[in-house]
Amino acid sequence: MTQGQLLYEGKAKRLYTTEEPNVLLVEYKDSATAFNGEKKEEIAGKGVLNNRITSLIFDKLHAQGIASHFVKQLSDTQQLVKAVEIIPIEVVVRNIAAGSLAKRLGLEEGTALKRPIVEFYYKDDALGDPMITTEHIDVLALATSEEVTAIYEGALAVNQVLQPLFTDVNVTLVDFKLEFGRDTDGSVLLADEISPDTCRLWDTTTKQKLDKDVFRRDLGNLTEVYTIILSRLGGK
Amino acid sequence: MTQGQLLYEGKAKRLYTTEEPNVLLVEYKDSATAFNGEKKEEIAGKGVLNNRITSLIFDKLHAQGIASHFVKQLSDTQQLVKAVEIIPIEVVVRNIAAGSLAKRLGLEEGTALKRPIVEFYYKDDALGDPMITTEHIDVLALATSEEVTAIYEGALAVNQVLQPLFTDVNVTLVDFKLEFGRDTDGSVLLADEISPDTCRLWDTTTKQKLDKDVFRRDLGNLTEVYTIILSRLGGK
Ligand SMILES: Nc1ncnc2c1ncn2[C@@H]1O[C@H](COP(=O)(O)OP(=O)(O)OP(=O)(O)O)[C@@H](O)[C@H]1O
Ligand SMILES: Nc1ncnc2c1ncn2[C@@H]1O[C@H](COP(=O)(O)OP(=O)(O)OP(=O)(O)O)[C@@H](O)[C@H]1O
Ligand SMILES: [Mg+2]
Ligand SMILES: [Mg+2]
Repeated sequence: MTQGQLLYEGKAKRLYTTEEPNVLLVEYKDSATAFNGEKKEEIAGKGVLNNRITSLIFDKLHAQGIASHFVKQLSDTQQLVKAVEIIPIEVVVRNIAAGSLAKRLGLEEGTALKRPIVEFYYKDDALGDPMITTEHIDVLALATSEEVTAIYEGALAVNQVLQPLFTDVNVTLVDFKLEFGRDTDGSVLLADEISPDTCRLWDTTTKQKLDKDVFRRDLGNLTEVYTIILSRLGGK
Repeated sequence: MTQGQLLYEGKAKRLYTTEEPNVLLVEYKDSATAFNGEKKEEIAGKGVLNNRITSLIFDKLHAQGIASHFVKQLSDTQQLVKAVEIIPIEVVVRNIAAGSLAKRLGLEEGTALKRPIVEFYYKDDALGDPMITTEHIDVLALATSEEVTAIYEGALAVNQVLQPLFTDVNVTLVDFKLEFGRDTDGSVLLADEISPDTCRLWDTTTKQKLDKDVFRRDLGNLTEVYTIILSRLGGK
């Protein structure tokens, strides 16, 4: 499979066509961004780490019966995925209060939630990715109610697999963001990435942050903590 | 029924005890406030107008089978209500995009929604009354799921009564905010007020704003437009 035309350059990845019409090549970049692109830095090695971690996680999900757009890792920074029509909803699953939820509800960061919660955000940079409800999704016709159900249940299923995966290596899965797309047959398919860029991951014992908050909040060396996650998950 | 001790002074009303333990006296004040109290003004006659309009609307709701805390109007600025334990959720019903919804979703103010939507806000001034979902309500234990269902259905039922009430007098009910409380028997009861302070009301023909946006956005004389609403509803 060879790299074709650049289709889209995002903040963290580039998407290229391939000779297969339904397959895209994703290249993970070394850029770190936060606060809707306001904070930005190039960090050598980040792309390799996120490509490896995402590939490893999609493989683990697949082994547990959760389908995704992931086809295979191609190289250090590249992977092949099924092309989907991305549904413009960022789906956040939370097990522990942190970040915007802690602020919104006035909870101390680290407060365990009595149950996982699923939040939806409208994927629209100009609007600042506002939180939305299923009724807003309906009014904006972002997804059908069947799709919302598939997304909701899919997100909780991913949590069911990822939680023990991380717990087993002394990492607490605080929260994570997913994106879903429409497959060629119209079904909902898990897409995008699952990496320390899109998860909050804390060392269970020390509570050390092993995710992008290290960059957002200037807490240390990003590649160091992403490397810890990769190696705890059994990657090299 | 006589006025007892001051129980609570809010931005728009004062609550007093009465000789009946389950009955409160509400006195409507002449204060107008907006933006979480940042903008503030005394407007002579506002209390009388809101007391009359709220009394009239709770009477109309009662006639259509919708129970509320309202007992009766006592005087120009006073009414008697059943004491309830207020559930700290502001319930917003929207028929047309305006205010924070228009901003959140990037819709032009005045865009008709294909269906009414119900939103929940956490009634917490220090947090700025953030929007919350039913899952946040569960996690914070603000209400049981049965109470949330009663609130949700109650809010839509109020909309079903108020929409034609206003349409018949050439007023468009754009959106409104409700509060609910727990009655002595634990059931959910509609409470607080329903007035141009808590509704967006537009003249259907001219689109003139006949509600608190006149004050929020400095669009004209508040008592003039509240008087229009009172008289269109058949009050004096
Ligand atoms: N399988 C897929 N098919 C099509 N597009 C995809 C697929 N998986 C992910 N994408 C999209 O590719 C882009 C990935 O780029 P990146 O993560 O850098 O974007 P971004 O800077 O986060 O911007 P955006 O706000 O668009 O996500 C995203 O827009 C994502 O939704
Ligand atoms: N039947 C009732 N029993 C007890 N409290 C009530 C009842 N109806 C309304 N309330 C409460 O009385 C107060 C009314 O005062 P007001 O509307 O001025 O408050 P406010 O300034 O809006 O402040 P708040 O943010 O507390 O609503 C509100 O806190 C409201 O929730
Ligand atoms: Mg992205
Ligand atoms: Mg009030």
